[in-house]
Amino acid sequence: MEFTAEDIAEFLSGEVDGNGKVKVTNVSRIEEGKPGTLSFLANPKYEHYIYSTQSSIVLVNKTFKAEKEIETTLIRVDDAYQALAQLLEMYEQSKPQKTGIEEPSFVSKSSKLGEKIYIGAFAYIGSNVQIGNNVKIYPHAYVGDNVIIGDNTILNSGVKIYEGCKIGAECIFHSGVVIGGDGFGFAPSSANNYKKVPQIGNVVIEDYVEIGANTCVDRATMGSTIIRKGVKLDNLIQVAHNVEIDENTVIAAQTGVAGSTKIGKNCMIGGQVGFAGHMSIADEVKIAAQSGLGKSIKKVGMVVQGSPAFDFGPYQKSYVLFKNLPKMREQIIEMEKEIKALKEQK
Amino acid sequence: MEFTAEDIAEFLSGEVDGNGKVKVTNVSRIEEGKPGTLSFLANPKYEHYIYSTQSSIVLVNKTFKAEKEIETTLIRVDDAYQALAQLLEMYEQSKPQKTGIEEPSFVSKSSKLGEKIYIGAFAYIGSNVQIGNNVKIYPHAYVGDNVIIGDNTILNSGVKIYEGCKIGAECIFHSGVVIGGDGFGFAPSSANNYKKVPQIGNVVIEDYVEIGANTCVDRATMGSTIIRKGVKLDNLIQVAHNVEIDENTVIAAQTGVAGSTKIGKNCMIGGQVGFAGHMSIADEVKIAAQSGLGKSIKKVGMVVQGSPAFDFGPYQKSYVLFKNLPKMREQIIEMEKEIKALKEQK
Amino acid sequence: MEFTAEDIAEFLSGEVDGNGKVKVTNVSRIEEGKPGTLSFLANPKYEHYIYSTQSSIVLVNKTFKAEKEIETTLIRVDDAYQALAQLLEMYEQSKPQKTGIEEPSFVSKSSKLGEKIYIGAFAYIGSNVQIGNNVKIYPHAYVGDNVIIGDNTILNSGVKIYEGCKIGAECIFHSGVVIGGDGFGFAPSSANNYKKVPQIGNVVIEDYVEIGANTCVDRATMGSTIIRKGVKLDNLIQVAHNVEIDENTVIAAQTGVAGSTKIGKNCMIGGQVGFAGHMSIADEVKIAAQSGLGKSIKKVGMVVQGSPAFDFGPYQKSYVLFKNLPKMREQIIEMEKEIKALKEQK
Repeated sequence: MEFTAEDIAEFLSGEVDGNGKVKVTNVSRIEEGKPGTLSFLANPKYEHYIYSTQSSIVLVNKTFKAEKEIETTLIRVDDAYQALAQLLEMYEQSKPQKTGIEEPSFVSKSSKLGEKIYIGAFAYIGSNVQIGNNVKIYPHAYVGDNVIIGDNTILNSGVKIYEGCKIGAECIFHSGVVIGGDGFGFAPSSANNYKKVPQIGNVVIEDYVEIGANTCVDRATMGSTIIRKGVKLDNLIQVAHNVEIDENTVIAAQTGVAGSTKIGKNCMIGGQVGFAGHMSIADEVKIAAQSGLGKSIKKVGMVVQGSPAFDFGPYQKSYVLFKNLPKMREQIIEMEKEIKALKEQK
Repeated sequence: MEFTAEDIAEFLSGEVDGNGKVKVTNVSRIEEGKPGTLSFLANPKYEHYIYSTQSSIVLVNKTFKAEKEIETTLIRVDDAYQALAQLLEMYEQSKPQKTGIEEPSFVSKSSKLGEKIYIGAFAYIGSNVQIGNNVKIYPHAYVGDNVIIGDNTILNSGVKIYEGCKIGAECIFHSGVVIGGDGFGFAPSSANNYKKVPQIGNVVIEDYVEIGANTCVDRATMGSTIIRKGVKLDNLIQVAHNVEIDENTVIAAQTGVAGSTKIGKNCMIGGQVGFAGHMSIADEVKIAAQSGLGKSIKKVGMVVQGSPAFDFGPYQKSYVLFKNLPKMREQIIEMEKEIKALKEQK
Repeated sequence: MEFTAEDIAEFLSGEVDGNGKVKVTNVSRIEEGKPGTLSFLANPKYEHYIYSTQSSIVLVNKTFKAEKEIETTLIRVDDAYQALAQLLEMYEQSKPQKTGIEEPSFVSKSSKLGEKIYIGAFAYIGSNVQIGNNVKIYPHAYVGDNVIIGDNTILNSGVKIYEGCKIGAECIFHSGVVIGGDGFGFAPSSANNYKKVPQIGNVVIEDYVEIGANTCVDRATMGSTIIRKGVKLDNLIQVAHNVEIDENTVIAAQTGVAGSTKIGKNCMIGGQVGFAGHMSIADEVKIAAQSGLGKSIKKVGMVVQGSPAFDFGPYQKSYVLFKNLPKMREQIIEMEKEIKALKEQK
């Protein structure tokens, strides 16, 4: 496909700044731009590339002001990153879509399948499963007994969903995701043996949830582990039994949430963060990567860092002083000498 | 199924406190309790719910003393959490069990299968495999050549066991578990190239071991990586080559153990902990989440925190002072001024 | 197979020190040595075992000097660990190799397969795939449409490669590896909803790369996520979209690299390290386990620790003082008293 800058500006409700007739056939990153491709500029860190990029077109924010001459054609939009997302979506949707049932696959007769679905070879659909319309289930995915899956959801190759879990519509789960494995619950028994506590609950995942590769969400001991609408989980995340993550919270890779902890709406959580169990985190909280949360956060919008975590600003100050501890120690030794000298002068 | 409080109290050897005729058909969490369900109270954090729960029956410890009037029926037992586990186990065992061999599956003719086993569709059993009685191998599980699996063990969908590994009886492995992948061993070669050191050992897992989703246990370079009887590993844990984890040690999610490290019996290890290689950790050691172990621990029962980890109490004290470093710095500046003033008065 | 010490010394260009006629049939670790086996000694920590081991032969470095009498036969070589690797490789190569196509498997007619390949049962090969010679694709591996795989590469059971990714020659991917899942990219939309940014790039992995179990490498938003020649990634690692890891860099388990970060050549990176996005790390940098990298490192060969990370030596000093903060606080309180006393004496 080939588009002119004018075509694209019209599609995005943007304004052309430069040659509107220039044509592109692909996209590229601004720092690797080639003629015939379109790039975007959103992060100011990359601004200097706009003066040298070979890309034929660059999407920029309306507020962007050039400091030097620019050779490439600009398209000015309200939000360059979002505009790019729109373009990429159009590109993605123009791709051919998989449909039909490949053989050999295993579909229990007691299951109900929606219309226009794709079931890849070696996919497994257990008993009494309900699958909505336009769902795509790739090869080696496993859907246990009594699972429900909403419309337009995609299970990539090798996703595993244990029995009895409920998955919403418009979700995307990447390869290796495990939904509904047993929670980690053991009762101490005689002589240091542990007895397994059966985990008889399930996992409920609402609509528009995306879950990254090899992330695990354990089933509840009783009741449900719940991931609410619009939550985005990155790769290799651990969500333990009876956790609840509220709407539109975003969590980066390798974070772990221990049992029964509740996380509020619209939180932004960095990578490799750890949450202790039985806590509750307020809405809109931001947590720096590698932090450890040992107790609940009640203040909406709080920003924290550290392990255990506390306010972001004070953490930063303390950490600067941590680096300076050797100097602080020297100051103390020096003062001790001076005090001693003062005392001897008496 | 429907049970009265009296039925349940008899099954658990407990005492009814309230209406013994009340009936339940399901279980629920105390904070989400509904009429017709049974809940339990073990964690004191949840004690206040007992005065408002809608659950018809609540299991409590014998030592529990009500501070207000309680409407629900109590069943008093020695240990409420363990009693719940007993009930859930009964509930779990009453479910229908999978048996038989689903098609298509791949079972090498040279393998020996025990009685009453389940092999799901798309499961793969290699050459010379020995599988005990009542074993359940779910769809997409892979059992490499020469593997041995003991009685009653469950491999959930997508578990991978490389050739030559030995798995005990009564084990449960969750989806995505990888047993026997190559250890991470490379010998530096000329010009910054690494040469793979073949990993010709195996993994030995004893009885009653449970391993969480997507956890990895690497095969030994030579000899065996060993997980002893009763060990419980949560999700997304890394166990490197030639590690040994002794009986009944419990490890929370996302912890990593580097090569050749030995961990003692009955240890309790938090989430996201890291162990360096070639160390040894004594029995009954407790390690706080996110700690980093850089050297061996010889003292039985030691409790540690930090990265690198040291004694838990002193760590807590140091961390409080870390938070107060800005204040400490002000004190030092103040003292320096005062000393200067004292010197000038001379 | 049975070899004498003389045979082995000749193969390794080493020198026998002791009985050259002694025979071995297997290898063992020095601390678990048995008669009829060969062990090696490279790590000085294990040196004391050489005086008591039951192994019939021990490989040692030429520089090794015995402090006591040794009963076992020594073979002296330039580098004992590398010599062991050579022996293990010979042992490994003598094993029977899998070849042929097991049924049922799924191979699209539009794909091109090289010679002498192995495709296990339940493996899935999509459309227009190109697979080189001697490639081994184990059961349950998934190779998406338009993927290219070079000669001699091994995909273990359950490896997932999304469409359009390019894999080099001589690579080994372990079970559960996911290559080419979508990068974690969302554009904030109205009212706290996130809109997925389609990830239309791919992953390019060069020759001689080994990737551990359950490690994830996400596809680029645009362009490619790149893992260069000779890189070794351990288990459970996260590599985000548009990351580049340069030649022969080695990364230990559970480390995570956020989007668009570039890591140089010949770096050595510990376990559970976290990298923020959009950074660049110089060649030959060494990073201690559990460190957090918040900004770029420009200095070749720098060694860092901490979260956020700084120079290794100063970090160690600061951490010792962190442990001593309670003592430092006492010193400050003591000095305050003394200053007060001095002032009162005026």
